[in-house]
Amino acid sequence: MATIDLNSDLGESFGDWKMGMDEEVMGSVSSSNIACGWHAGDASIMVKTVRMAKAQGVAVGAHPGYPDLLGFGRRNMTCTPDELYAYTLYQAGALAAICRSEGMELQHVKPHGAMYNQAAKDPKMAIAIARAVQVLGRDVILMGLAGSEFEKAAAELGIPFAAEAFVDRGYMPDGSLVPRNQPGAFIHDPNEAAKRMVRLVKEGVVPAADGSLLHMKAHSICVHGDNPEAVRMAQVVRTTLEENGIAVKNLRSAALSGGV
Amino acid sequence: MATIDLNSDLGESFGDWKMGMDEEVMGSVSSSNIACGWHAGDASIMVKTVRMAKAQGVAVGAHPGYPDLLGFGRRNMTCTPDELYAYTLYQAGALAAICRSEGMELQHVKPHGAMYNQAAKDPKMAIAIARAVQVLGRDVILMGLAGSEFEKAAAELGIPFAAEAFVDRGYMPDGSLVPRNQPGAFIHDPNEAAKRMVRLVKEGVVPAADGSLLHMKAHSICVHGDNPEAVRMAQVVRTTLEENGIAVKNLRSAALSGGV
Amino acid sequence: MATIDLNSDLGESFGDWKMGMDEEVMGSVSSSNIACGWHAGDASIMVKTVRMAKAQGVAVGAHPGYPDLLGFGRRNMTCTPDELYAYTLYQAGALAAICRSEGMELQHVKPHGAMYNQAAKDPKMAIAIARAVQVLGRDVILMGLAGSEFEKAAAELGIPFAAEAFVDRGYMPDGSLVPRNQPGAFIHDPNEAAKRMVRLVKEGVVPAADGSLLHMKAHSICVHGDNPEAVRMAQVVRTTLEENGIAVKNLRSAALSGGV
Amino acid sequence: MATIDLNSDLGESFGDWKMGMDEEVMGSVSSSNIACGWHAGDASIMVKTVRMAKAQGVAVGAHPGYPDLLGFGRRNMTCTPDELYAYTLYQAGALAAICRSEGMELQHVKPHGAMYNQAAKDPKMAIAIARAVQVLGRDVILMGLAGSEFEKAAAELGIPFAAEAFVDRGYMPDGSLVPRNQPGAFIHDPNEAAKRMVRLVKEGVVPAADGSLLHMKAHSICVHGDNPEAVRMAQVVRTTLEENGIAVKNLRSAALSGGV
Repeated sequence: MATIDLNSDLGESFGDWKMGMDEEVMGSVSSSNIACGWHAGDASIMVKTVRMAKAQGVAVGAHPGYPDLLGFGRRNMTCTPDELYAYTLYQAGALAAICRSEGMELQHVKPHGAMYNQAAKDPKMAIAIARAVQVLGRDVILMGLAGSEFEKAAAELGIPFAAEAFVDRGYMPDGSLVPRNQPGAFIHDPNEAAKRMVRLVKEGVVPAADGSLLHMKAHSICVHGDNPEAVRMAQVVRTTLEENGIAVKNLRSAALSGGV
Repeated sequence: MATIDLNSDLGESFGDWKMGMDEEVMGSVSSSNIACGWHAGDASIMVKTVRMAKAQGVAVGAHPGYPDLLGFGRRNMTCTPDELYAYTLYQAGALAAICRSEGMELQHVKPHGAMYNQAAKDPKMAIAIARAVQVLGRDVILMGLAGSEFEKAAAELGIPFAAEAFVDRGYMPDGSLVPRNQPGAFIHDPNEAAKRMVRLVKEGVVPAADGSLLHMKAHSICVHGDNPEAVRMAQVVRTTLEENGIAVKNLRSAALSGGV
Repeated sequence: MATIDLNSDLGESFGDWKMGMDEEVMGSVSSSNIACGWHAGDASIMVKTVRMAKAQGVAVGAHPGYPDLLGFGRRNMTCTPDELYAYTLYQAGALAAICRSEGMELQHVKPHGAMYNQAAKDPKMAIAIARAVQVLGRDVILMGLAGSEFEKAAAELGIPFAAEAFVDRGYMPDGSLVPRNQPGAFIHDPNEAAKRMVRLVKEGVVPAADGSLLHMKAHSICVHGDNPEAVRMAQVVRTTLEENGIAVKNLRSAALSGGV
Repeated sequence: MATIDLNSDLGESFGDWKMGMDEEVMGSVSSSNIACGWHAGDASIMVKTVRMAKAQGVAVGAHPGYPDLLGFGRRNMTCTPDELYAYTLYQAGALAAICRSEGMELQHVKPHGAMYNQAAKDPKMAIAIARAVQVLGRDVILMGLAGSEFEKAAAELGIPFAAEAFVDRGYMPDGSLVPRNQPGAFIHDPNEAAKRMVRLVKEGVVPAADGSLLHMKAHSICVHGDNPEAVRMAQVVRTTLEENGIAVKNLRSAALSGGV
């Protein structure tokens, strides 16, 4: 039976500031990427979000970011590989301890925002992050863009890697995302998004912006929980996948069945 | 053979700002309390300090503090027990991951500054911190003031506790420290400090400020590395202890010999 | 003609996190207390909020807080008077420059949260804050709880002071607020709140929790904009005041008419 | 009589962490660039440093930086022009208020580290910073690299500009600095540095790395105070300038004599 993981960024509130519909989207996903306090989230919110994930049977991953609360980790910064290694290890280590305190194990690490985007194209950054994932535990999975430097770094170090696809983004024929300012950058219709994802899982293809078929291997699909429309899209996608005989399972469960 | 642990606060630099003579004092102690980035230290410095500790055979403990970099964690703050639990777990968890990345295990947790002083007198705070230590691992030791709420909290939860004595502070007959503004608050002479510590380890007593003998049980002695005088005192104390047949061992080694 | 100022805490978003219905409540108040980046707000939000205030004819005051973003400035901290002086001067100075950049002048300074509550009872803290207000400009007004140490400090330094009343809080016969966990702590009905404020302005009295009449002098009434109910209360209060022949004017306008 | 300004970055300590020999170098300079709390410095240190500058007759400028305490503002960050405007206005505004509290006026603004380096080459960034300087007051001077985008931005807005030269750096024939990893990047000998600066002030030339003479107009010379050698170089430079009949004056004094 075909399986796929659904992941979403969660725990992005900070102190008294709320962000995201965590409770609502948690019901549709199998994996969570939890912010670790540097670009969003804080220690108390991490504890609360891990408990929520456990209660709903959702696997937990770390979502480390740049030390840029003011910019939500979305601004490029020039950090050295040694800094990236330490930043990833620190943030994911803190979350791993919180997981263990609740009887869970950290499933994966998925960098956030500008750290994700910069490292996806920079081999030295990707290797530095992958090294931190490696020392966090032999089962900890690095999650990142399919075909990116993350995938190469994971292969080089021999650590598990999960490629992710984006539920609401259009793709160019070469597998890159349609730039945000071009037509076809976003898929707004939940049913269309769901159908694309069914095809991705079953056939390993997704229609590219020019109508051609793009071959793509994804272990996880990234959905959002920022607003009611995003939450609804997540629900429709999950339901449609299951109606088409696809089991939504987290990465570790899938791995046990021969996945990641 | 009598044994004792010597501990010192280390890794208190931050970014480009240096603090402490870590290299120098590291040679005299058996345990380090490493700052975890909230009141001092940062992820890169933590990695560097753990490596230095490993190279010198020094055990590593976490030194979590309040989220108050500007005040070096020395200002009282009103945090809830749930916050203290999360803050301790986050900071010590981050350091534990860094320890593991270097093939070490976190030995202990010793709160810093105002968090230490407030929790030492407040049962709810002490229990919250002790709960975080408990979930960090069954062998992780809570270190704190002898006879304080830390000791009671550790006993209540059944977790290992290490009482610490201060090498350079005078004691009142009831075991409390001589207030900083009173005569006898500080021991400045390294030889006098060393002799007091030998007596503490061998006889379980230390002369109090009024000349009476205070009975005290300490598993660890806190020495400093802020300045050349402090470093010299640490060296003299270590040498004197060893010349008197006392082995300086970290808490875990001592525990294996029936200590903590 | 009777006049009163209505003030509200604004600009409490931070980075990507939104808080408060600033646009909505701005239409009902004559003065704004704008967060200065230490407990809430940031430089960009301050610029945006000052522009919004100017566009709506609302006077601008600084709302400095403790350096505690994580705790929203609501946690007690032990700061020295020198620190409080510097913290207030820094935060209000930054906002004053932003005001001037938009052709406005800083009207007042009202400390936030725990800084407000602690200093209201502590003469040394209140004087330290008042000294910072004094050096910000001879016309800058200190706003605080009526009858508090703020009022005494302002009198001692000879700087203008504005006493504030709380639209939605019950009062004890001695002028203190009914504790939050006691009956009568909050006024929920906008019409009742509005009537109380009309009486306060016209007669200088407000019914206390025990039914007696409390004499109180207020230059400003604090309303909230956190949620739709608060915004509606602010609107009802403003409308009711005006229907009763009371002009809602900021503190400087009122001062020109012989107010503050 | 020829005059020149000597400037140095000061107030770069943070909380309990010390950095720089402020007291020592303050005696040799006529202008100070004081850190404003985002990359270094804090409100208390700013007050203390402004007082020290006043006592020694040194003019005060703001030294705003990126919100990156961990990286000391030396890491490139992608900030929008609106953000840079707000960041500069906030930081310099806070320092301006502190200056005024001590009876001084803010003399200039010189961006720090990566903000300086990025904006020196980016017209949009330079204009955003210059706009903030403009609204801080008509006399406030923008200080930056000679011939950079800062100079063009100041000209475009019609605000005063002060070009700075670096006492200890070698120059390429085109006026750019010799890259740090090339021979001739640094001038280590205080006497050589001093002679170069005398020639710069008197003849408007400095020998470039290839032996040719570079024509350069500088209103201020940047000296350092990080270590004893830097402090000594500052002293030698000042003494040598004065021995050669050059008066060391801050920018405003010089402007009154027809300078900036």
